[in-house]
Amino acid sequence: MPHRIRRGLLRINLDTRKVTRDVIPEECVELLLGGRALGDDFLYHEIPAGIEPLSPDNKLFFSAGPLTGTSAPATSRYVIHTKSPQTGLYLCTLSGGYFGPELRRTGHDMLIIEGASDQPIYLAIWDEKVEIRDATHLWGMPTDTTQEFIKEELGDSKARIACIGPAGERLVPYAAIINERRAAGRGGAGAVMGSKKLKAVVVRGSRQVEVANSEGFSIAVRHALSDIDRNPLVSKEFTLYGSHHGTSALSAGGIVPWRNWQNGSSPKAKELFPETWREKFVVQDVRCAPPCSVKCGKITLVREGSSAGAISEGPDYEAVYSFGSCCDISDFAAIIEADALCDKYGLDAVSMGVSIAFAMECYERGIINNSDTGGLELKFGQGHLLSRLVHDTAYRQCFGEVLSLGTKKMSEMFGKGSDAFAMHAKGLEIGGYDPRGAKSVALIYACGPRGGCHKAGGPSNFLSMMELQRKGSPLSTRERAAVVKSKGDKRVLSDSIIFCIFQHMGISDEVTVELLNAAAGFNWSIEELYAIGERGSNLERMFNVREGLRRSWDTLPPRLLNESPVTGPNQGQVVKLDELVTEFYRIRGWDIETGIPTAEKLNELGLGKILSELNSNLKAAADKRSHD
Amino acid sequence: MPHRIRRGLLRINLDTRKVTRDVIPEECVELLLGGRALGDDFLYHEIPAGIEPLSPDNKLFFSAGPLTGTSAPATSRYVIHTKSPQTGLYLCTLSGGYFGPELRRTGHDMLIIEGASDQPIYLAIWDEKVEIRDATHLWGMPTDTTQEFIKEELGDSKARIACIGPAGERLVPYAAIINERRAAGRGGAGAVMGSKKLKAVVVRGSRQVEVANSEGFSIAVRHALSDIDRNPLVSKEFTLYGSHHGTSALSAGGIVPWRNWQNGSSPKAKELFPETWREKFVVQDVRCAPPCSVKCGKITLVREGSSAGAISEGPDYEAVYSFGSCCDISDFAAIIEADALCDKYGLDAVSMGVSIAFAMECYERGIINNSDTGGLELKFGQGHLLSRLVHDTAYRQCFGEVLSLGTKKMSEMFGKGSDAFAMHAKGLEIGGYDPRGAKSVALIYACGPRGGCHKAGGPSNFLSMMELQRKGSPLSTRERAAVVKSKGDKRVLSDSIIFCIFQHMGISDEVTVELLNAAAGFNWSIEELYAIGERGSNLERMFNVREGLRRSWDTLPPRLLNESPVTGPNQGQVVKLDELVTEFYRIRGWDIETGIPTAEKLNELGLGKILSELNSNLKAAADKRSHD
Repeated sequence: MPHRIRRGLLRINLDTRKVTRDVIPEECVELLLGGRALGDDFLYHEIPAGIEPLSPDNKLFFSAGPLTGTSAPATSRYVIHTKSPQTGLYLCTLSGGYFGPELRRTGHDMLIIEGASDQPIYLAIWDEKVEIRDATHLWGMPTDTTQEFIKEELGDSKARIACIGPAGERLVPYAAIINERRAAGRGGAGAVMGSKKLKAVVVRGSRQVEVANSEGFSIAVRHALSDIDRNPLVSKEFTLYGSHHGTSALSAGGIVPWRNWQNGSSPKAKELFPETWREKFVVQDVRCAPPCSVKCGKITLVREGSSAGAISEGPDYEAVYSFGSCCDISDFAAIIEADALCDKYGLDAVSMGVSIAFAMECYERGIINNSDTGGLELKFGQGHLLSRLVHDTAYRQCFGEVLSLGTKKMSEMFGKGSDAFAMHAKGLEIGGYDPRGAKSVALIYACGPRGGCHKAGGPSNFLSMMELQRKGSPLSTRERAAVVKSKGDKRVLSDSIIFCIFQHMGISDEVTVELLNAAAGFNWSIEELYAIGERGSNLERMFNVREGLRRSWDTLPPRLLNESPVTGPNQGQVVKLDELVTEFYRIRGWDIETGIPTAEKLNELGLGKILSELNSNLKAAADKRSHD
Repeated sequence: MPHRIRRGLLRINLDTRKVTRDVIPEECVELLLGGRALGDDFLYHEIPAGIEPLSPDNKLFFSAGPLTGTSAPATSRYVIHTKSPQTGLYLCTLSGGYFGPELRRTGHDMLIIEGASDQPIYLAIWDEKVEIRDATHLWGMPTDTTQEFIKEELGDSKARIACIGPAGERLVPYAAIINERRAAGRGGAGAVMGSKKLKAVVVRGSRQVEVANSEGFSIAVRHALSDIDRNPLVSKEFTLYGSHHGTSALSAGGIVPWRNWQNGSSPKAKELFPETWREKFVVQDVRCAPPCSVKCGKITLVREGSSAGAISEGPDYEAVYSFGSCCDISDFAAIIEADALCDKYGLDAVSMGVSIAFAMECYERGIINNSDTGGLELKFGQGHLLSRLVHDTAYRQCFGEVLSLGTKKMSEMFGKGSDAFAMHAKGLEIGGYDPRGAKSVALIYACGPRGGCHKAGGPSNFLSMMELQRKGSPLSTRERAAVVKSKGDKRVLSDSIIFCIFQHMGISDEVTVELLNAAAGFNWSIEELYAIGERGSNLERMFNVREGLRRSWDTLPPRLLNESPVTGPNQGQVVKLDELVTEFYRIRGWDIETGIPTAEKLNELGLGKILSELNSNLKAAADKRSHD
């Protein structure tokens, strides 16, 4: 039997302050790998249906993957699982940087935080040792100074810190968790931390991360580096433009949403192309953390004007979409500042920008007015408002108190038909690729496990490009469903390894298998790895099903179904969602009527037990209702 | 002969990029100690009269003192000498923190920077090794991120950095040099760095700072700690309230200037007392750097409102005066934010706030109007304007372009009698103690070597308190002149050692001598040390005399001479400066007519050569004029 790596689990209960240590069973690792899929399993089994996301019943799971902290390229990531306060459904959210590798160097692959403190605290984890420290003095601090003060206080500049800002403390439902200048952004994990009065988690390890077969692993790493190097998209374009590499092509295809999705393009679009702003604003290309040779991160700096002094590691494509095109703002300096403030205060930049765009459309339509906005002329294009709006949202004050509700709840509050253009799915504001011009993306937003996320079913960017390339001979519904399914499962696999999604595009399946087997000491086949991806996808689905999700929930904002873009190449286009969803369910092995994974599919994935548990719970609940 | 410590000097020429190393001669150390007095001597001899402060002819001298980097308490300081762009005269400016001790650990007591680069650069000094590194990517960055990025880039979290922000880059005449969150603030040394395109100086040393007699030194350190401990002002009040410990007494005495010095008190004064704001805003008491047990630094954090998220190491009393009382602003959160932005962008908080107050009075009097201010209603009390004004001053944009001139040049530009209430002396905005209620302070502002600085002739706070205590039987002119002279010389001594001025109050002369002799290996007497202070004072005076300074320059803003406070205990009071200055010159041994140190005084201090050089230069210039 091959040498296998011990994978530690650390559980900290904030109610009892009890710390327990455990080992993740080998059979779990074999079936679920690590990172996302493994976290899916823990989330499913430890978070019962119906709990309130901001109650002490919710938990936070911080997980690394089998390659995290090794010398394999593009693996400096971690994933957080929790029940989302924004959607009330499944949430996993990832971030790059130094936290994941350091977590593993403490000897743990997973950290579970339960219960809640009644006073502000932070956790400091040094290998086996856990300190629960007072954070009263840090409460109210932005994330940058929080990290600075903790490092100073612990006397350790290499302590790695995941923390929340004022947005998380104030339970903004789309508050992010920040490490360095990077966000585990979407879905409100920061608010869950805030509800536990947990300001920060600090990790500092002294151990070298082991691999099972170090010789084989070194060879596999060389293969991976060579794969990346041979792929010009990954090794050249990402270095130059990061996540913006496709903006001009997407814009030409009418895929970049403008004015809260009224348009798919704009005469101002060019202002937001990286070719326009790179030279003026980018001062450094950076990576999350070693080992990575790509450096897709862009440090941007504003040197003049009212946003002068703003520095961001970003904005990435999604933030340029949310604050820029979606708000019809082409002032790139204002976008940099808004993005930097999201990191500083701990907010998700996508939900923030899209919420502002929604409010702008409501204002322009007279659904809200100056008495609602506190006198702000909240029109599209007002870049000078962004920084104040982001600030006040984080602190839930002035009109920020309204914006902090997010798009869905704002539309419920505003009424007057505003739900027709409230650009969210299941409560999560949708990402920046217009499915009216790239139909396969519709499935990602409609059926993704965490709501309208552009990453949930594979890379939307990639799917959009594929659709654009096939404009002459469009993809069939079947092809669309198939590609979203397979890319979605591969995405879960990437997030379980955990690979950087950009660089994983450049690494072949063969090399992926080689790396994982050498690192973990298993003997996975390519098919088994993809099955892990599919297993994760179905666990995530079942979590949501157990929360009540059925087919009717898998939908899109009415604007995408009923209105076509005002101008641009996709005029006349709307999404015909029904046929796409039916085909997607069919390919997924989910029941066409309900959207619940079939027993056959679950049994195939070794998840049969989950379905029978669910069914007996449902039956018990129904019995209870009939007796009441 | 006792063991004496080698005191290295590093000279870097930015034109030629030549680096030279030297040793500071022992006789220099014997006569001038280190820090300020030693720097005075270098400045006098290396900066010829008449050079343009922002030309490559100017130099920057960074100096430590004989106790810097040792275990003696309250010695983590350094001093910068240069010719001031704000006054065109002598400038020394000090800062606490980690830079000074680290400079000494590189094996150098002084660093001289000459010439100018044509491209942005920064210097990295590792013991003997000097790197001149590109700073193009850092140009435009605030000081906090500058330090963060340099540490990251050098891979060294313990690199200690003195840098400039956008204000220094843009040559704002009151731009500061910042290390950590601390400023060498007054007089515009940051603009001199900016004129040399020098973004930062980084020091990192591997050496232990030696003392001549380690056993004797340990005993002296214990004595110093015991002295501090026995002094409740130093060991208790400074810890609680830092530089604000006397605010309520000063306010009751009408010494705290309100509304650009129209008043010496205000019904709102209490809002600015530390007793009012400490609990709400202070999250941590901090020290510059070890060794210090006092922790007079206050980390303040704003947790709500439009300034929420602002964090400062401060504001100290002077910033609360300049942004608060002087601008009639009692919104403490806005003051914290303005103070934090001064550090972030590299501005002197005193000159900034007083310049704003001056502009406010001009606005209220109709000397400037909305067309000058770009539409801002620049009235007293408008706390919400502060952050924008500070930001725009640093970037010299909008009305900030005007404010960046400073009070003196603004009054020259505005005209209309505004010089009557332009609160500067020799171009430097004056500190926050009203000499109409504490007459001795008048001499500090009028005769101080760097212009209207509250520190120049000893601690103004202390003198104000002394005046207040003697209200019933006021000090005589003679006593006032004597105390300003002796405290002024002691101040030069403190700044040469370099002691923290607060804690030096608690350390006896005997212990000071004991520390210095043990550290440096000399055999100074108390009298010799005070003579060093006086020698420095006279070198500084001679620098200014050589630049043309004569008695008529030693004056105060007309408001202090002609107008009495509108309300408060000092109504009816003005400063009768002439008799004070005459007596001060007499006690100083300066010529009553000209204000030039007499030959007798200079000979007594061993500075006779300087006067004869000056006289022969003056004669040569006069001859040249008569021949022209």
